[in-house]
Amino acid sequence: MMKQTIASQKDRYIEELKDFLKIPSISALSEHKQDVVSAAKWLEGSLQKIGMENIEIIETEGHPVVYADWLHAEGKPTVLIYGHYDVQPADPLDLWETPPFEPVIRDEKLFARGATDDKGQLFIHVKALEAIMNQDGELPVNVKFCIEGEEELASPNLPPFIDQHQDKLAADAVVISDTSFIEQGQPAICTSLRGALAMELTVKTANSDLHSGVYGGGVPNAVHSLVRLLDSLHYQNGQVAVEGFYEGVPEPTDELKQEVAQVPFNEEKTKQDLGLDALYGEEGFTFQERTGIRPTLEINGVTGGFQGEGIKTIVPSEASAKISCRLVGEQDPQQVYEAIQQHIHNHQPEGAKTEMKQFIKANPVSLDSQNDMIQKAADAYESVYGVRPLYPKEGGSIPIVEVFSRVLSAPVVLMGFGLPSENLHAPNEHFHLENFTKGIETVTEYLYSLGK
Amino acid sequence: MMKQTIASQKDRYIEELKDFLKIPSISALSEHKQDVVSAAKWLEGSLQKIGMENIEIIETEGHPVVYADWLHAEGKPTVLIYGHYDVQPADPLDLWETPPFEPVIRDEKLFARGATDDKGQLFIHVKALEAIMNQDGELPVNVKFCIEGEEELASPNLPPFIDQHQDKLAADAVVISDTSFIEQGQPAICTSLRGALAMELTVKTANSDLHSGVYGGGVPNAVHSLVRLLDSLHYQNGQVAVEGFYEGVPEPTDELKQEVAQVPFNEEKTKQDLGLDALYGEEGFTFQERTGIRPTLEINGVTGGFQGEGIKTIVPSEASAKISCRLVGEQDPQQVYEAIQQHIHNHQPEGAKTEMKQFIKANPVSLDSQNDMIQKAADAYESVYGVRPLYPKEGGSIPIVEVFSRVLSAPVVLMGFGLPSENLHAPNEHFHLENFTKGIETVTEYLYSLGK
Repeated sequence: MMKQTIASQKDRYIEELKDFLKIPSISALSEHKQDVVSAAKWLEGSLQKIGMENIEIIETEGHPVVYADWLHAEGKPTVLIYGHYDVQPADPLDLWETPPFEPVIRDEKLFARGATDDKGQLFIHVKALEAIMNQDGELPVNVKFCIEGEEELASPNLPPFIDQHQDKLAADAVVISDTSFIEQGQPAICTSLRGALAMELTVKTANSDLHSGVYGGGVPNAVHSLVRLLDSLHYQNGQVAVEGFYEGVPEPTDELKQEVAQVPFNEEKTKQDLGLDALYGEEGFTFQERTGIRPTLEINGVTGGFQGEGIKTIVPSEASAKISCRLVGEQDPQQVYEAIQQHIHNHQPEGAKTEMKQFIKANPVSLDSQNDMIQKAADAYESVYGVRPLYPKEGGSIPIVEVFSRVLSAPVVLMGFGLPSENLHAPNEHFHLENFTKGIETVTEYLYSLGK
Repeated sequence: MMKQTIASQKDRYIEELKDFLKIPSISALSEHKQDVVSAAKWLEGSLQKIGMENIEIIETEGHPVVYADWLHAEGKPTVLIYGHYDVQPADPLDLWETPPFEPVIRDEKLFARGATDDKGQLFIHVKALEAIMNQDGELPVNVKFCIEGEEELASPNLPPFIDQHQDKLAADAVVISDTSFIEQGQPAICTSLRGALAMELTVKTANSDLHSGVYGGGVPNAVHSLVRLLDSLHYQNGQVAVEGFYEGVPEPTDELKQEVAQVPFNEEKTKQDLGLDALYGEEGFTFQERTGIRPTLEINGVTGGFQGEGIKTIVPSEASAKISCRLVGEQDPQQVYEAIQQHIHNHQPEGAKTEMKQFIKANPVSLDSQNDMIQKAADAYESVYGVRPLYPKEGGSIPIVEVFSRVLSAPVVLMGFGLPSENLHAPNEHFHLENFTKGIETVTEYLYSLGK
């Protein structure tokens, strides 16, 4: 019967989600600060409408947190639902087939920035609770929402927020839908997330750009100094060349290697999908290991000197790069950052001055797939999709998972409904509507089973 | 008496030059195409006013050439005056103290993009001819003007133009004012220019940017591939690592080394002026050698991946760099380009596709300082400045000098009136007004002496 209710309301749910997706709540860009606030207010209204209580937009040093609860299921467990209402920047805009903040449906997929990461997945919970409330007039468990606006900035203000609001947020399980299936039809509950660390490296040489005819060959070049530094971060074999980088990285056991190898992977198909001639990574490891259980260092962007049409024959005086790492095991983000600082210092080219700035720090986290809260979620997936989920080790980072797990001492259940092909963080992000409605069913099943 | 005429007209000359400088004739940027045409038309009017004849704006495949002549000095030599009315791009705009296309005078210097390179220096000739015409009603020599609008693009269309118009342009000397003094008070006639070559290198990996959490560590990174390629272009000792790059570079003789060493150079002052801790360049050569008689390869700019505020944890799929070389001796620009292509091909990182595009090609050139046309120019400088010019080997390139010299079989006289400190190609470009008026005097002296 719940299935029919959801089917009959589906179109309205999607229209509401579209309204949410129209708000360009890009947390990384200061010109969108007001849009981020609008998204928080939109959520407040949406939670009010379904009967949530004690709704608050709580200010932080950055973008606000939206809190709400419904605590009338006496003697029943309490579930804390976490999600985020901020989205990634949308550039490069010219690669979007339709504008990122004008949601449209094509082939039963909803296209918009944030469709799968995370507005669409978050909204599954809102609509699941609405469906139960409409049918039963009450919820089978106690529910709290903690929805932030800084996940795409790696949640700089949420860890202290959780620390300060331990009692308010206390729960028997933290449920998060911000991850992906293995592929359509094969659900997954992620049980391991890599940590993260991000930084900016700036190189300065002369006090202004110089004419390459007059000074070329005789003065340091900031772009050249930067590329030398960036290239020094890896060995030819794909290993990170920073001394101390691998400290705390566990030697993968045969057991772990087998578990990782279970996640289906088709090299030819992956190469074809991504338009690649060859994959690339640390020698001695498989693609699944490289992207799941090994740490990485990636250059996310680089800029310096003349970038217009044609040529400008200058010796550039300034250049910079964004760098981020994914961390595993016992790697400590602060220690890794300091190791990179030391490496940059040791490799500083003659005549170049370097500056570094840190953005993100998040510990790696590992979850127990046999925990009862996770097994009940697996049951719910199986009853809706007819397939039991796998428990992959994901390469991505949701920095707050480790904090929830540690500070609230509660199991974190990563009930994802995205697909890896949904272009999250890329142009033409989308969300399969089938997983939107089946997701709502799965969540209602899960909450009923927790309330039994 | 000429000196007094010039002094009395100086303010008007400067007002006219300001009008010329207000036109943002940036040849490299297609949005300024119309401004480039406006600058050509402005010149046409200016040449008409001083009595030049047969004025034409001649179309090319790119920006037009302005031609004019006055050929009534029977039996006297013919001087071809070359200059350019296009200017460099003005970015970074925020480093200009006053807007680049709103000329202003501060401390007897005229600030504007193009003030010294080359509108101000070109205008010296226009006003010198005007002064002579006003005084004598005729010129002491035959004069032709060939003024182009693509010098800052390395004159892609002028070599075929000169080829096609050999008779029209035929002259006993080609006079160009687009170079600099050694320092204020010490004039110079440049007798050697490096050749030039410029290109763009683009690296592509996947068909779109990828999420570094999902794919990081397992796929090629376009920025990383690019920095690896760029860094491979030099050895640690500052030498260019491209096989065949140094072919045709003469081993500097002791004589040449001595000549180069005569050009004054103060390392401490240079470092201080440029805000540098250290100079940098090819091991085994002095600063003057590195910037004057040695070939170089410089990265002029680099771009790729996320460049906004904060961080975006992507694996970038595309990155590109602008690269330019200065060439000497018998180095052949086309051969050097092919050697670099081969190097890039040989060093192509796994999974990366590279593309190259060529912009500039210009042969190096060497001129004989003892030629009579150059010695008479030296006499003119000496009579106005009281100092005989030096004959430096300049590191910059004026690609067309070699073509004029070869196709017209005429000596080229590089009568510069700029100063090396005038920020050509950089923010706050300016021109010392003292050299503007003394330049007019010098040119009139020179033309009279040629007519004797």
